[in-house]
Amino acid sequence: MVAKRDIQDSIIQAVNTVKRTNPMAGSITNTVTINFVANAQLAVGGSAAMVYLPDEGEFLAKAGGALYINMGTLLPVYEQTLPHVAKVLHKAQKPWVLDPVAVGIGSLRTRILQQFKEFKPSIIRGNASEIMALAGLWNLDGGTKVSTARGVDSTDSVSAAKEAAVALARWTGGAVAVSGETDLITDGSVIAYSYGGSHFMQKITGAGCALGGVVAVYATAATPFIAALTGTAVFNLAALRAEKKADGPGSFHVHFIDELYKASAEDIANNPFDIEEA
Amino acid sequence: MVAKRDIQDSIIQAVNTVKRTNPMAGSITNTVTINFVANAQLAVGGSAAMVYLPDEGEFLAKAGGALYINMGTLLPVYEQTLPHVAKVLHKAQKPWVLDPVAVGIGSLRTRILQQFKEFKPSIIRGNASEIMALAGLWNLDGGTKVSTARGVDSTDSVSAAKEAAVALARWTGGAVAVSGETDLITDGSVIAYSYGGSHFMQKITGAGCALGGVVAVYATAATPFIAALTGTAVFNLAALRAEKKADGPGSFHVHFIDELYKASAEDIANNPFDIEEA
Amino acid sequence: MVAKRDIQDSIIQAVNTVKRTNPMAGSITNTVTINFVANAQLAVGGSAAMVYLPDEGEFLAKAGGALYINMGTLLPVYEQTLPHVAKVLHKAQKPWVLDPVAVGIGSLRTRILQQFKEFKPSIIRGNASEIMALAGLWNLDGGTKVSTARGVDSTDSVSAAKEAAVALARWTGGAVAVSGETDLITDGSVIAYSYGGSHFMQKITGAGCALGGVVAVYATAATPFIAALTGTAVFNLAALRAEKKADGPGSFHVHFIDELYKASAEDIANNPFDIEEA
Repeated sequence: MVAKRDIQDSIIQAVNTVKRTNPMAGSITNTVTINFVANAQLAVGGSAAMVYLPDEGEFLAKAGGALYINMGTLLPVYEQTLPHVAKVLHKAQKPWVLDPVAVGIGSLRTRILQQFKEFKPSIIRGNASEIMALAGLWNLDGGTKVSTARGVDSTDSVSAAKEAAVALARWTGGAVAVSGETDLITDGSVIAYSYGGSHFMQKITGAGCALGGVVAVYATAATPFIAALTGTAVFNLAALRAEKKADGPGSFHVHFIDELYKASAEDIANNPFDIEEA
Repeated sequence: MVAKRDIQDSIIQAVNTVKRTNPMAGSITNTVTINFVANAQLAVGGSAAMVYLPDEGEFLAKAGGALYINMGTLLPVYEQTLPHVAKVLHKAQKPWVLDPVAVGIGSLRTRILQQFKEFKPSIIRGNASEIMALAGLWNLDGGTKVSTARGVDSTDSVSAAKEAAVALARWTGGAVAVSGETDLITDGSVIAYSYGGSHFMQKITGAGCALGGVVAVYATAATPFIAALTGTAVFNLAALRAEKKADGPGSFHVHFIDELYKASAEDIANNPFDIEEA
Repeated sequence: MVAKRDIQDSIIQAVNTVKRTNPMAGSITNTVTINFVANAQLAVGGSAAMVYLPDEGEFLAKAGGALYINMGTLLPVYEQTLPHVAKVLHKAQKPWVLDPVAVGIGSLRTRILQQFKEFKPSIIRGNASEIMALAGLWNLDGGTKVSTARGVDSTDSVSAAKEAAVALARWTGGAVAVSGETDLITDGSVIAYSYGGSHFMQKITGAGCALGGVVAVYATAATPFIAALTGTAVFNLAALRAEKKADGPGSFHVHFIDELYKASAEDIANNPFDIEEA
């Protein structure tokens, strides 16, 4: 199995490359947290651009180093945009991050997520319920047939989603990140557990969405597994630090962005994590 | 008339039930303040989910304990979504909150608001001009024939909207909350006046929208009248406290979210209010 | 050439008129930064209203003192809304601000921006790359044929866009503001350079969008040149002050809104600037 020290070196390299090159990672993402996604991407050193139309999505897919697709608040035009852009990304072998928010709700969401199976997102990020429901939708191991997702909230624990996460990562050949009290990241052969975070992450909307956007930034400069782990680590670190200064979720959010910005590559690499074989 | 002490007990129960059960109140709301709505709902202990599509709105209407419909930035798909979802809510007897933002502007807005009359929103929240214009649109007492709404700003005082508010509440069998310097809440038989707030509430966008979302959260756990009064009270309390710490509207907003989160059930119940018969 | 003292007097008058009259400047703007636009407009004393539908845009164009059109995240309905509203504004001789975000990306964006040439926006605000690309699209001097815009980021310096800015201002008969380290504002005969700002402006999303919205507020009370210079000056001043208190981009954003609110007319007029003939 890969050594922790090698993983930490890769994290340091990803963070510093992003800080140095200001890479662009476009997004097609929900209107609730779109501002948070952009500001989180900027805070870690990336550049952001958001679109809705099919040809603009294609442009971003080709121009950016990676793309982030978040299924939050679907608009009618997504029926054209999302499958088209995912196909472009897949053909161009560009890394892309899928956040299957609220999988199981609505017919368009289900139809698009089914189509995404063949376009193999490089990184899938979700809570335990979403990861298990997506695996179920794609007929993979560990999947749940009926979604237990409650809107954007998870009703399952991260460990319950381990089999589904590994199966999804093996299918895509990329990585999967399951957010929860302890976060799980896997490429189908190694599983990393990332520690830290804050209870306030549940009290601000879009922590998961913003993480997806930040992971896309790191995916311009690292493997899917390292990108997912780096994004998760900087979120866990920044949340832990922000909680100490916060008086509630409003000030927590402000400090969290500050801490994303201030975290050094070494700090991020040293954020506690464990690894095991899948 | 109901005793103030009984109202306060009901407020305490509503607040504590929400804090304990983390109820989901979905929203179909404008893109300007959608993030503030979600964060305010989370701050008081609720859970948020936003959608645009008809079948997803139906899902939220059935899955959540209440729904919030804000007429802010209409999109073309709202023509299908809003009447359909309001009908589902009415048939399922689910509480829902209507914020008739900018009533009188545009043909789609007028058409949808006319349709809403028969679907009887449990709670209507707006500024004085909006409440009077909606009563006028529905041919109820106290209504104004021609809207005097100036975009999202009120040009009328709360007391001028008293007759319209009572008429609307009697029509729906629910409650109406009129936001202004002193807020008025009525169920058609009792009128409550809630005090507090801050001049900064006019200097941040979406205070009214966020209140609508928070009232929907409380509507999962209380009568329309108590839900509207509880939401108004926690806003008045949090704004008063936030103003003391604020250096301008930016820091006010941050402290306001913190204070929404920190307000106890007893604090909210003790926020000053008066009652009279309608 | 006009004297600096006269310009400063005009700035003072514009700021005080806005603070006294709370003028409404509607917007059709992107979903990423729409909340920041509204809050910035409110902070300087204006009033905000955002819409998407054609007839609602027409209403705002006629009801407000000025309108802001930002090309950020185009939706399908913009194909109807934007040319229609621009035509209404032009016919009614209402001031309007155009932010040609990401000019060159996608066919709808190009088509709409081409149509805007004849509707002559009173003020055009963009970064150097966008200003040069728009001049190119309109076949004006100093334009670039092929856009070098990288999403929302500029790849050109402000001075490189001087010829294009002057040509655009002469075409429209209005003003052009080019954002960069030093900002350039011209009405085609005078060029002003405005100083100040903060490196954090690049680290929060939407500083340019919010500036466009604030310039629209001032355009209700001043000439296009004075409106553009006043908006730029208050942004440079507020950013400079906010940076001194900030611990990162999150707290910078909060302080920036506070400082927009607190800046006096005299402070804004005294923010350093130089002028030269075009």
